[in-house]
Amino acid sequence: MRIGILTAGGDCPGLNAVIRSVVHRAVTNYGDEVIGFEDGYAGLLDGRYRTLDLNAVSGILSRGGTILGSSRLERARFRAACDNAKELIEKSGFDALIPIGGEGTLTAAKMLSDAGVPVVGVPKTIDNDISSTDRTFGFDTAVGVATEAMDRLKTTAESHQRVMVVEVMGRHAGWIALESGMAGGAHGICLPERPFDPADLVKMVEERFARGKKFAVICVAEGAHPADGTMNYGKGAIDQFGHERFQGIGTALAFELESRLGKEAKPVILGHVQRGGTPTAYDRVLATRFGWHAVEAVHRGDFGHMTALRGTDIVMAPLAEAVTELKTVPKDRMDEAESVF
Amino acid sequence: MRIGILTAGGDCPGLNAVIRSVVHRAVTNYGDEVIGFEDGYAGLLDGRYRTLDLNAVSGILSRGGTILGSSRLERARFRAACDNAKELIEKSGFDALIPIGGEGTLTAAKMLSDAGVPVVGVPKTIDNDISSTDRTFGFDTAVGVATEAMDRLKTTAESHQRVMVVEVMGRHAGWIALESGMAGGAHGICLPERPFDPADLVKMVEERFARGKKFAVICVAEGAHPADGTMNYGKGAIDQFGHERFQGIGTALAFELESRLGKEAKPVILGHVQRGGTPTAYDRVLATRFGWHAVEAVHRGDFGHMTALRGTDIVMAPLAEAVTELKTVPKDRMDEAESVF
Amino acid sequence: MRIGILTAGGDCPGLNAVIRSVVHRAVTNYGDEVIGFEDGYAGLLDGRYRTLDLNAVSGILSRGGTILGSSRLERARFRAACDNAKELIEKSGFDALIPIGGEGTLTAAKMLSDAGVPVVGVPKTIDNDISSTDRTFGFDTAVGVATEAMDRLKTTAESHQRVMVVEVMGRHAGWIALESGMAGGAHGICLPERPFDPADLVKMVEERFARGKKFAVICVAEGAHPADGTMNYGKGAIDQFGHERFQGIGTALAFELESRLGKEAKPVILGHVQRGGTPTAYDRVLATRFGWHAVEAVHRGDFGHMTALRGTDIVMAPLAEAVTELKTVPKDRMDEAESVF
Amino acid sequence: MRIGILTAGGDCPGLNAVIRSVVHRAVTNYGDEVIGFEDGYAGLLDGRYRTLDLNAVSGILSRGGTILGSSRLERARFRAACDNAKELIEKSGFDALIPIGGEGTLTAAKMLSDAGVPVVGVPKTIDNDISSTDRTFGFDTAVGVATEAMDRLKTTAESHQRVMVVEVMGRHAGWIALESGMAGGAHGICLPERPFDPADLVKMVEERFARGKKFAVICVAEGAHPADGTMNYGKGAIDQFGHERFQGIGTALAFELESRLGKEAKPVILGHVQRGGTPTAYDRVLATRFGWHAVEAVHRGDFGHMTALRGTDIVMAPLAEAVTELKTVPKDRMDEAESVF
Repeated sequence: MRIGILTAGGDCPGLNAVIRSVVHRAVTNYGDEVIGFEDGYAGLLDGRYRTLDLNAVSGILSRGGTILGSSRLERARFRAACDNAKELIEKSGFDALIPIGGEGTLTAAKMLSDAGVPVVGVPKTIDNDISSTDRTFGFDTAVGVATEAMDRLKTTAESHQRVMVVEVMGRHAGWIALESGMAGGAHGICLPERPFDPADLVKMVEERFARGKKFAVICVAEGAHPADGTMNYGKGAIDQFGHERFQGIGTALAFELESRLGKEAKPVILGHVQRGGTPTAYDRVLATRFGWHAVEAVHRGDFGHMTALRGTDIVMAPLAEAVTELKTVPKDRMDEAESVF
Repeated sequence: MRIGILTAGGDCPGLNAVIRSVVHRAVTNYGDEVIGFEDGYAGLLDGRYRTLDLNAVSGILSRGGTILGSSRLERARFRAACDNAKELIEKSGFDALIPIGGEGTLTAAKMLSDAGVPVVGVPKTIDNDISSTDRTFGFDTAVGVATEAMDRLKTTAESHQRVMVVEVMGRHAGWIALESGMAGGAHGICLPERPFDPADLVKMVEERFARGKKFAVICVAEGAHPADGTMNYGKGAIDQFGHERFQGIGTALAFELESRLGKEAKPVILGHVQRGGTPTAYDRVLATRFGWHAVEAVHRGDFGHMTALRGTDIVMAPLAEAVTELKTVPKDRMDEAESVF
Repeated sequence: MRIGILTAGGDCPGLNAVIRSVVHRAVTNYGDEVIGFEDGYAGLLDGRYRTLDLNAVSGILSRGGTILGSSRLERARFRAACDNAKELIEKSGFDALIPIGGEGTLTAAKMLSDAGVPVVGVPKTIDNDISSTDRTFGFDTAVGVATEAMDRLKTTAESHQRVMVVEVMGRHAGWIALESGMAGGAHGICLPERPFDPADLVKMVEERFARGKKFAVICVAEGAHPADGTMNYGKGAIDQFGHERFQGIGTALAFELESRLGKEAKPVILGHVQRGGTPTAYDRVLATRFGWHAVEAVHRGDFGHMTALRGTDIVMAPLAEAVTELKTVPKDRMDEAESVF
Repeated sequence: MRIGILTAGGDCPGLNAVIRSVVHRAVTNYGDEVIGFEDGYAGLLDGRYRTLDLNAVSGILSRGGTILGSSRLERARFRAACDNAKELIEKSGFDALIPIGGEGTLTAAKMLSDAGVPVVGVPKTIDNDISSTDRTFGFDTAVGVATEAMDRLKTTAESHQRVMVVEVMGRHAGWIALESGMAGGAHGICLPERPFDPADLVKMVEERFARGKKFAVICVAEGAHPADGTMNYGKGAIDQFGHERFQGIGTALAFELESRLGKEAKPVILGHVQRGGTPTAYDRVLATRFGWHAVEAVHRGDFGHMTALRGTDIVMAPLAEAVTELKTVPKDRMDEAESVF
């Protein structure tokens, strides 16, 4: 068999582990040929690919990023290609395609599948917000990086009697903030799923100081926002070029708290360090299992599905199901995190 | 309410996170008093305990070990105490007991429960071998330590064209070897669940060298053993005191491979570094959730159960179920790991 | 003897290691009493201190921050106290004082020394900018954190064909940027010691892209600034409260490069994660040696000096020398770093 | 110019950083050609090499091991080649040679130099035992790995009231044991430089237990040995093949202490994890500077020397000086470490 593979969307620790696993399983066990399309769907549309043998994937298990590159989807061109799916397949001569990516990538995968391309998807997002799977790889690494940062910030906050506002990734779903806030022992956690009131945070900090704890760490998802009317937020500042620059919520909230508390409050924006670098053991195992099971699904002819974690098992979930709804943090998980909003 | 808590058995990253979580939830939300028995069941039998308030658990989330200490169970004395459960409860005046521990601890917890003590267990083992729960905290940390060691050993093995045999923990179940071997990219994995034949490992190494890959890493659980008649193992060596000292399987296998391959093969015994130190974010979250749900179970009167992870949910599992059978690595997980035995 | 100790100024990994070392050496070897003043010089002025015995410093070697707390110097009150040095000494009854801190703290130490207080200083700064010593503890930890961040950012930058601008600490001296930029393989390094021209950075990035390297990482010290007339910088943006907010150089430079290059350029501001958390082994050893030698100096009566690293030796340097001039990055070190300005 | 480079001897984190630095400086600044001999001196003798351009060294800064491979020196063949140095140079056509290695490699480099080959050496050893240089790269990484292990072991030792004996590398010089023992807070440190008496360690442990500290960690260099007559050590045990196997000092000492103390004492042999994997920032900077200065020395015609760290400067030291004597731990550094022998 000839199996095509591609990585699309934002990068994520564990992508290379999936690629390696697919190649190992397909080549060693089935004698397949694996071809890797370059720069995501762009490589598929252009017919740009290279053969991936065992040597090509040697040593990549622990490396961040993707050896295949990635790029944004050109929607119009992609739609046109879907209308000529047969031609698309013939151009590169593959028998099955394994696209690895997030919501956008999987939606595109579904379009290809509907157009008759034999597709097995592999979900990927550091945000952990894809439905139908308990977890996605990359998430554990992101949470680990954010937690280590909070461990470090606590000693600084404590020595200087400061409030630290740590902004982590998560535009629409607050999983990273939830778990890194819990693991890092944050005293307040703000998620996109539930608008917060700065007054609650002020109260929490004041109670801590009253108890003799002279610092606090607040973990904020980048997509968190204040409840209506509780805080002046959303108006951009004017930068040196005269453009309006929107402050992130972390910076805005730190200013707000400093102003209300009369105590130093500093923002720390973790940014892209959360999505790069070597994946944790957890993410490597999950990514490797996803790759292994994707190859099995290809050989079973189980198309139109994606690999998914359910409990300790890897199962196949319909692509249709996976992309209809974002998996957000449910109420009981927020309650567990003892957050303060 | 007055809730007693204790940690028993081998130490495990995440114990302090459970203690902290129990105290936070019970004190802040329910206004309970939490007392911590010292040195495991010994402290319960002796009535040795101290009150744990918020300050007592401050800063312990990221710390390995247990602030309560641990000790081996004195069986006879424990049985006698169970016969006088009422007296035991009166001595320390608690309304519910949360013992945190592995198989032995939970078996003892069941005895207490059968004797009428209101018990909610929390499972703990770096070996991940407790039934009824998808995972236990401590396991992710152990796998992480072993994986990082394999990452480091690979560059050494490669530069010196060597075979490295890495022995990891796991006397009866091979979970740590399975997942760290997979995450660390080991070329062979030996588990207690399936006797291995050194000839298979020799073949794998020779094939790698033939392909130009001049090194190999083999991950062996300490409880792995060769199939009958395949290797001379199990006879101890005589040390300087004239005592017979049994070599671990890692050392024995390295000697065996060196002798059969005519190439350098070095054992590395990771040992206790796997069970100490700061827990990973994953383990902190799981431990914190277990503590939170244990307190909820206490307040619901849900005794005779232990907290358990199922998928993404924390549920309550009967203690009886949890301790009847060890959770070993199933055949399909071994196959996934592409092991060579 | 009765030795007083205090930590002042910004926190820094290794402070606790010095405190522990002073106590171990003084108590175990000389039978001294060690008292720790709370919150820096404030505790000295107020006579607020506690006795530090072996138990008080148990387990703090690897912990960030300072168990003694820190605070800003109240200059007027401090000067007044210096005028009554005898009284100051009598209030707490110490025979020697070991203040641990940066430039400000050591300047104050010199004032005390001039006023007749027997003082042995210990230099501390993550910025590594104190003269008379080859290195200060805390610096290695800061460089390590920044380097790890750059390792992670590279895979992200590469996958997305992006320019990353990483802002690290260093207001007046660029040591952290120099060494983390070198260790992290940054393609451009901007230091306070030499104004940069954004045009040089643009040229470097374009040459890299022309060579097929589709990403670049630029490491900028927070105190770096553009050469006059090369870039519009220094005018603050107006935030939601109507206040002028000055953008950091990292953010300003990323905008500038994005605008000039027509390619995505993202700022990452590492901030306070660089100064907290567990110290590296290097910093623990240096801090421990400084503490040990400070006690020796006290017993030799070698006052008015501070501990300093010269090659592999710990020597005593006059406080006067240490505080007269900031140690900045010399030209030859900038050249070595193959920077692009 | 045409510069040859090779890596020989045991692997060491930072080798790739030197190679990368040499290529960057020589190619970019001087327009040199750099050729890398494969597998150490073997590649030089065989004329096996490849050209190293900027792409060849891309991404290797943070990688352990050596992209050039290494091998043991074939002495007889090497001597013969030295006798025909002119021919050796002509075979590969290089103008200067940069061998990177430890004592053996540098001794060979000196022989080449004496035979008329233009040589600039770069010293390398995780053991830090080369004279003429304050430090060698690889050492900081090894100390870091050993320190982290001790951090982890302490929580385990404490929870189980155990003595841990950690054996680290260092056959002839105890630098790793000295600095990791100091950084990891070991309660006893045994070095090759000073024979120890187990009775002193027993006394130290008993005093700790008497003070309520129910654990101890002892750090032992693999080359440490007991003073004559203090302990039965050095007789090998007979293994399953009937061969005499010599126990390492860590294992022997743990058994000895357990037997004398009547308390559990466990050996942990760190082994090869200390020498592999990604180098610390410190080692990357030192290795990069060594590479940079080696190229400068080549262009100055400064042959027969090696790069060396003195204080904060990189200087050139005669090869003759560097290889005459091993740099061992001096008495005052042992005293600083507050060791117990």
